[in-house]
Amino acid sequence: MENERIAVSIITIGDELMIGQVIDTNSAWMSQQLNAAGIWVKRRVAVGDSRNDIRKALDEEGRHSQIILITGGLGPTADDITKPLLSEYFGGKLINDASVLKHVEQIFTRSGRPFTERNIKQAEVPEGCEVLFNERGTAPGMWFEKEGRIYVAMPGVPYEMKGLMTNAVIPRLLKRFNTGNIIHRTLLTSGIGESFLADHIAVWENELPSHIRLSYLPNFGMIRLRLTGLGADRQTLADEVSAEFEKLKKLTAQWLAADEDITMPQLISKMLRERKKRLATAESCTGGYIAHLITGQPGASEVYNGSVVSYTNDLKKRLLHVEEDTLSRYGAVSEPTVRQMINGVLEATGSDYAIAVSGIMGPDGGSPDKPVGTVWVAAGDRQAIIAKEFRFHHDRKRNIEYTANHALNLLRRFMLGDEPF
Amino acid sequence: MENERIAVSIITIGDELMIGQVIDTNSAWMSQQLNAAGIWVKRRVAVGDSRNDIRKALDEEGRHSQIILITGGLGPTADDITKPLLSEYFGGKLINDASVLKHVEQIFTRSGRPFTERNIKQAEVPEGCEVLFNERGTAPGMWFEKEGRIYVAMPGVPYEMKGLMTNAVIPRLLKRFNTGNIIHRTLLTSGIGESFLADHIAVWENELPSHIRLSYLPNFGMIRLRLTGLGADRQTLADEVSAEFEKLKKLTAQWLAADEDITMPQLISKMLRERKKRLATAESCTGGYIAHLITGQPGASEVYNGSVVSYTNDLKKRLLHVEEDTLSRYGAVSEPTVRQMINGVLEATGSDYAIAVSGIMGPDGGSPDKPVGTVWVAAGDRQAIIAKEFRFHHDRKRNIEYTANHALNLLRRFMLGDEPF
Repeated sequence: MENERIAVSIITIGDELMIGQVIDTNSAWMSQQLNAAGIWVKRRVAVGDSRNDIRKALDEEGRHSQIILITGGLGPTADDITKPLLSEYFGGKLINDASVLKHVEQIFTRSGRPFTERNIKQAEVPEGCEVLFNERGTAPGMWFEKEGRIYVAMPGVPYEMKGLMTNAVIPRLLKRFNTGNIIHRTLLTSGIGESFLADHIAVWENELPSHIRLSYLPNFGMIRLRLTGLGADRQTLADEVSAEFEKLKKLTAQWLAADEDITMPQLISKMLRERKKRLATAESCTGGYIAHLITGQPGASEVYNGSVVSYTNDLKKRLLHVEEDTLSRYGAVSEPTVRQMINGVLEATGSDYAIAVSGIMGPDGGSPDKPVGTVWVAAGDRQAIIAKEFRFHHDRKRNIEYTANHALNLLRRFMLGDEPF
Repeated sequence: MENERIAVSIITIGDELMIGQVIDTNSAWMSQQLNAAGIWVKRRVAVGDSRNDIRKALDEEGRHSQIILITGGLGPTADDITKPLLSEYFGGKLINDASVLKHVEQIFTRSGRPFTERNIKQAEVPEGCEVLFNERGTAPGMWFEKEGRIYVAMPGVPYEMKGLMTNAVIPRLLKRFNTGNIIHRTLLTSGIGESFLADHIAVWENELPSHIRLSYLPNFGMIRLRLTGLGADRQTLADEVSAEFEKLKKLTAQWLAADEDITMPQLISKMLRERKKRLATAESCTGGYIAHLITGQPGASEVYNGSVVSYTNDLKKRLLHVEEDTLSRYGAVSEPTVRQMINGVLEATGSDYAIAVSGIMGPDGGSPDKPVGTVWVAAGDRQAIIAKEFRFHHDRKRNIEYTANHALNLLRRFMLGDEPF
């Protein structure tokens, strides 16, 4: 598949990646953008701040791919060895770039920060490279060509890298290459296991044409199915992929949550917007994570009022009017409690819909009766409430993520009037 | 540096990585664990679900490293091609492993899910590999040895991979190799730029011995400084690194937020626990993210009461008793509003300390007067409140992260009685 088209390797540089001190989100973002532009990412490689390792990575990726995109190692401090190495690798010396220097000076003047020797060095670029202007920061992008290969070095700061990719790198690549077409269609299922789903659609899957393939992407207890098509003519390919996607939708209809590549928070926001309704949440064990998922999206204020994160029983009583008797008789992790939380938060916030969760996320707090991972989730409005118990078996972080996703899914089903829940 | 010691390559497999549909958190976690065990990760490589690319990655990484850890591509569905390839690569055929089959059957029986042909295939392993028991899932780990190299294949599901790494892979590697020692010491600074900091400590940094090195890790507007030492004798190395770390602490004293590798939420939780005090938050623009950061940690209930996520002005009035007059005169993003939010949430939750934030995270909602990125943050108790205005220049997600981090830092400084704020 990948041999038919131009391929990209992404190299990320930094010891912080090698010791796991940061998670590499740059590569994922770059892959998304390249993919959307019809450019296939073939390999992603991360190496530490070692001249030798960086040099070898440049050599090897030059053999794998026509385009090598590099991020990291371009900041102002002493652990940065990438720029001198690039300079040497492409056979030139470091020279001062007047326009970059002027830009760096302006940034420091504007912010009132002291301008040092070190900052002047940031305006140095290897001779022979083409400078890509970085309007978001001091380290410029650098475009090199060598033996039919294109190498582009960018700073590792995500905001700066994204500016360079969007404004300079991708437009130039599209001008240079006929990228062909990649088309993805993705749907989201809930309530069915991966193996069972695979058996259910096996006959159809086996008959897919060779240029269209299917991937299974498990996602917090739900499964996304993605069709990927490759082809020369965009319209023909779009029609072919659409036709297969429609068949897949029919086959999976009873478990279908969304027929687009959309996250659960995006889906809920969209449904609320379409219905012109507003949501509030009452969160105990998820501790504000559901609120964060909803408010992480632009325009959240159109559909979301807010949340009461009632982490203690006291707050459940004070702010959500859960009854003392309910808490002492059934416990905080119980159906009666989450039902009262729904009523309480609807009342307190004047919202149309509400979600409530209460559970034990671990590692401590479990009992034989209610082990770690036990969660009660409710969704409802002023007319009706549905509630459901879950048992998750992950670590704290995952239990929170699963709970949030399933809580949003319960609201989705409530809004659709699905039965049974 | 890396040539002195055994090195690991991590290979992650999956088209979802190549199109950026998921972020690779497995590699970071594995790197952390290996590093803590004194094992240096030299390279991390991600490739798609292509036989050819996987095979080449196995070849190449075998040349780079003595240990090659592989995750992904072992699930039950048809896009998984890794197991047959491994079988072929290590020169055997797939055989049924009785103990794995029994385990897989038990998992399905226990959860009441249907057991299919496909699940039986999960019990197949390449002959010649040593099976690593996966108690958390159906796909076993597989340990291969070839030409002096160790290859271990694990499923990509994080929870399952983590179990295998912790219980099988790392203990075996430690038994097999004398790993030497890697020691890290990290501190966190706030309120100083990277270049300025670098100049300030340049003389000391240039005199560091060659087996100890310094890295700068910018972190939401703060900077972590990490010393990494490599050495044969653990105690000697620890003493050497400690001595340099103490010098660094003195040099950076005026900006020092923490002298350990700790996140801001961990630091705040620790300070609250030491003081036996409880926190509440009143969040507008961060939409529950600060609550999530605090409650994401085990034992949060000891120090945290909860949050009022007052995403609308209506909720600021209803739940936090912000005055209508304040909102109409100064706006929701103003010092008087966040001060009233502090008082309101202390009152509503009966807490010792509170944080309040209100701002414009973007992409919409800005004005010439208060552009996107304008945030008012307050921290306080019943005696005093401090408030500060910030202007961030990132995208929505980053603005939320920066705001949360700076809000926690403001509380830290309030608790310490720092002046000026």
